Amino acid sequence: MTVYLVGAGPGDPGLITVRGLELVRRAEVLVYDRLIGAELLDEAPRGCLLVDASKRPDRHTMTQEEIDACLVEHGLAGRLVVRLKGGDPFVFGRGGEEAQSLSAAGVPFEVVPGITSAIAAPAYAGIPVTQRGVAAQLAIVTGHERPGKETSEIDWDVLARFAGTLVFLMGVGRLESIADALIAAGKDPETPAAIVASGTLPTQRTVSSTPRRDRRGRARGRDRGAGP
Amino acid sequence: MTVYLVGAGPGDPGLITVRGLELVRRAEVLVYDRLIGAELLDEAPRGCLLVDASKRPDRHTMTQEEIDACLVEHGLAGRLVVRLKGGDPFVFGRGGEEAQSLSAAGVPFEVVPGITSAIAAPAYAGIPVTQRGVAAQLAIVTGHERPGKETSEIDWDVLARFAGTLVFLMGVGRLESIADALIAAGKDPETPAAIVASGTLPTQRTVSSTPRRDRRGRARGRDRGAGP
Repeated sequence: MTVYLVGAGPGDPGLITVRGLELVRRAEVLVYDRLIGAELLDEAPRGCLLVDASKRPDRHTMTQEEIDACLVEHGLAGRLVVRLKGGDPFVFGRGGEEAQSLSAAGVPFEVVPGITSAIAAPAYAGIPVTQRGVAAQLAIVTGHERPGKETSEIDWDVLARFAGTLVFLMGVGRLESIADALIAAGKDPETPAAIVASGTLPTQRTVSSTPRRDRRGRARGRDRGAGP
Repeated sequence: MTVYLVGAGPGDPGLITVRGLELVRRAEVLVYDRLIGAELLDEAPRGCLLVDASKRPDRHTMTQEEIDACLVEHGLAGRLVVRLKGGDPFVFGRGGEEAQSLSAAGVPFEVVPGITSAIAAPAYAGIPVTQRGVAAQLAIVTGHERPGKETSEIDWDVLARFAGTLVFLMGVGRLESIADALIAAGKDPETPAAIVASGTLPTQRTVSSTPRRDRRGRARGRDRGAGP
């Protein structure tokens, strides 16, 4: 039986795809992580085996290898398996690794994309990630990596020069170091910025920074106001 | 009445969101463009006014200003208006301009994100846009802009140094000039590349380029093979 790697979207249960919801409603095994809303889990049919693969910052409920093995095992057993992941399976979702494990084990799989919070959370805050004359391109970067890490995969010089919108996913915890690294690499400190937490959920919070200048043209520091 | 700016997703009709489809089924006015599949238009209720806002390369059915005015007019008239756009309304969709027009006219609006083909088309070709140890970030760039254009908003030097996946949307027509500009700016000519046309549709075509080396380690030129 096919294993479906399904993106649940960014949090708002209305933002799962039609195809994704249809598969959740047919699942025999549903392997989910903590970013999935309870509303979606309620859509699983009676008798569906629910597997909590939550990965929390403090402790791992299941390691990635354990998740991969779980998908392979139930797939080989001929069950309809849905691996329900927050956002999109292939945008920092480690879906690629799960696909590789399934492929190596000879288990057929299908990817059902999901709405990534990298685009939807700004949208819910009223911010288009591209806009004519303002941002002609978009970069999506993990906010988990600590700037200054020796083996950093992030080139801050390049990001600072990137002429478009920069979205850092899961970056709230490293907000200050991200801002510092960008500014140190030459990014204008007055670049408009917004921080969105719990994007697309009723509890979403947005803080926007719009630079203000005093009469001499000096920046007066960051202005903070609640978003919509 | 609220005007809904709804992302229809990348083409596969199963990839519209649950919320988006629900709104299409309630629409009194549906303003759509040519990237929308006929299956979705069939979901509009009887009596719904269908407005074709198709913009084709050769001729404009409606200008952007006419589309904006149409949305404002029907919104002010109290109709439930759905503006159905290919992909995501805020990823090169000019949804930001439509939102501004509605806002300026005092018409309430809501954005319903859609799956962007920038992520879904590679996924359907088996390519995760991020992958541990391979691509820790993603840039989405318009493929419409001609390299060498005097007022280019694209900095090819920065893109060539971007340490992650580069996705050019709608770039098939400028494929050669995009590749040339990246290589001229220093991008390794052997960087793996794929071209996806009609992404997520039954007619999807994928061409992948995987560099091969002969025994002396020299590149043998590009290998082309059909994708999945």
